Amino acid sequence: MSTTTNHRIRLAARPHGVPVESDFLRDEAPLPAPGPGQALLRTLWISLDPYVRGRMSDAKSYAAPMEVGDVIVGGTVSEVVSAESDALSPGDIVLGYGGWQEYSVEDVSALRKLDPSAAPISTALGVLGMPGFTAYAGLTAIGKVRPGETLAVAAAAGPVGSAVAQIARLRGARAIGIAGGERKAAHLEALGLDAALDHRAPDLPGRLAAAAPDGIDVYFENVGGAVWDAVLPLLNEFARVPVCGLAANYNATSLPEGPDRSGALMGQILSKSLTVRGFIQREFAPTMFADFQREMSGWIASGQVLYTEDVTEGLDRAPETFVGMLRGDNLGKTLIKVA
Amino acid sequence: MSTTTNHRIRLAARPHGVPVESDFLRDEAPLPAPGPGQALLRTLWISLDPYVRGRMSDAKSYAAPMEVGDVIVGGTVSEVVSAESDALSPGDIVLGYGGWQEYSVEDVSALRKLDPSAAPISTALGVLGMPGFTAYAGLTAIGKVRPGETLAVAAAAGPVGSAVAQIARLRGARAIGIAGGERKAAHLEALGLDAALDHRAPDLPGRLAAAAPDGIDVYFENVGGAVWDAVLPLLNEFARVPVCGLAANYNATSLPEGPDRSGALMGQILSKSLTVRGFIQREFAPTMFADFQREMSGWIASGQVLYTEDVTEGLDRAPETFVGMLRGDNLGKTLIKVA
Repeated sequence: MSTTTNHRIRLAARPHGVPVESDFLRDEAPLPAPGPGQALLRTLWISLDPYVRGRMSDAKSYAAPMEVGDVIVGGTVSEVVSAESDALSPGDIVLGYGGWQEYSVEDVSALRKLDPSAAPISTALGVLGMPGFTAYAGLTAIGKVRPGETLAVAAAAGPVGSAVAQIARLRGARAIGIAGGERKAAHLEALGLDAALDHRAPDLPGRLAAAAPDGIDVYFENVGGAVWDAVLPLLNEFARVPVCGLAANYNATSLPEGPDRSGALMGQILSKSLTVRGFIQREFAPTMFADFQREMSGWIASGQVLYTEDVTEGLDRAPETFVGMLRGDNLGKTLIKVA
Repeated sequence: MSTTTNHRIRLAARPHGVPVESDFLRDEAPLPAPGPGQALLRTLWISLDPYVRGRMSDAKSYAAPMEVGDVIVGGTVSEVVSAESDALSPGDIVLGYGGWQEYSVEDVSALRKLDPSAAPISTALGVLGMPGFTAYAGLTAIGKVRPGETLAVAAAAGPVGSAVAQIARLRGARAIGIAGGERKAAHLEALGLDAALDHRAPDLPGRLAAAAPDGIDVYFENVGGAVWDAVLPLLNEFARVPVCGLAANYNATSLPEGPDRSGALMGQILSKSLTVRGFIQREFAPTMFADFQREMSGWIASGQVLYTEDVTEGLDRAPETFVGMLRGDNLGKTLIKVA
């Protein structure tokens, strides 16, 4: 390992609306050196996730925003180059949070060592990682989907949504997947969902009502916008809405035109005894992650849960790939293969 | 009991906005006769409640709307005149749902016999009845208020809100009561709340922020509108919002002007991991009503929970009193004393 240069992609400016190339700054820095209890890692895979768009803004959210100048954040799977710790050896593969760069230094205590023989290492960023756990935890702790119920999920061709739909079916529910475009709808059908709807085709409300003749008991909210507008009138009394993301709003720069429907939304929550509950997966990690790993590993091994990865090669292409993902170009888990 | 006439107040027309006199029809009918398993009841007290405004409209809600021509619905405390059942005797006092009339015939199985020596019988419509149980169940099952947390409640001088605030304090929380007008704010101070705010005075957001220096962990939603707008930015991560009523919206005839803030509301739910949960007390009655009666009876006997009744005499005055209650004229539980 003779490289002495670390290529990085940093936040050059806070995006206004959809991120553009000038919001990103590519640079080179000397290879960082690990201190005691730290490891130098070579990035193999970078996870691109919609929540990162939120962290580029300075609006108050569940996580502190990035500062201008910071390396763009993101989960990573990396190879240990060197470690100032007995817990890791060079060549070990670890899950970390190295961000958009070729090398990172991280605290060994924050890393999770992966077993490359158990599953492809990239799945630690997808179906066996944060997105898969988001699906599992939201369904289990909030959605509480029961046999015979109807679940709907948007962004259903994405890594969270496709896990949601498949887990719901394993628990005995009907699963309606909603995604943008014919290619994704066809993918949902291939996953064996009970209904697959393209939200870009005409009359989503009518098609969704037809697909949910008994109403909707659980709506796993990834998206917001027009899909949510179509779902809300179909929710049954006591329906549960885990709110995991609102991708339709992430690039919004101002509130949409009126009328103001926020009071009407509260009225629906009241009149149908709805549970609308925002969450971040880490809330449930201490109590559920071990169960998730055990169950999901089994489902993957048995083929009961299928997953798809959308891989782009090269760190340099991370910005365009990220913007494409926000636009919905990806099918499955969006990954950058770095090394 | 020689009366043969039953004075009633019926729904003459569905109100458009604030109910007006012509929406109500006063009439007389022959005294109804009980069938097998039924009782003829003489109404003593009628409960006036905001939810009845919703049932005057034909919008879909948790309860079927009244039909034009129906006697206005409402909880009642009545005296048994005669019963085609061994379970009740003439002179017994019962809680029922007789509505706005002097006499009613009800199924004995739907009545609850009251013990007049245990508590004033009118409390079965207030602090020991549906409003008190609404407060108890919403706080216990959804609000889950913990010692050291901060709770806020609007319509805090009403029968639900004042019980919410007092129960929260008994459970070790700080309680901020919000109500309309100086008279009600003074009443909240007399109840010993930690802060009492008049939402009609200027700068509610600023005064609420000052009263909640550690943010708000539970907001018991009775009202909606400007109070909710002031509360939302102060909610802490993982805050819980039991949604029990939206009195500010009940007379609305159209959606308010934009911008549309419904997406921003969902964004707050997501970014702060909020729980927003609509409920009707009956959902929790099977599991919690017995505990409620035991605990609340004790708190009333010990003076740890105080309650206020706002009594108007005479069935004829029910419509004007109901409209006044929707306007916020009442202090405490609004009752019509019929006989």
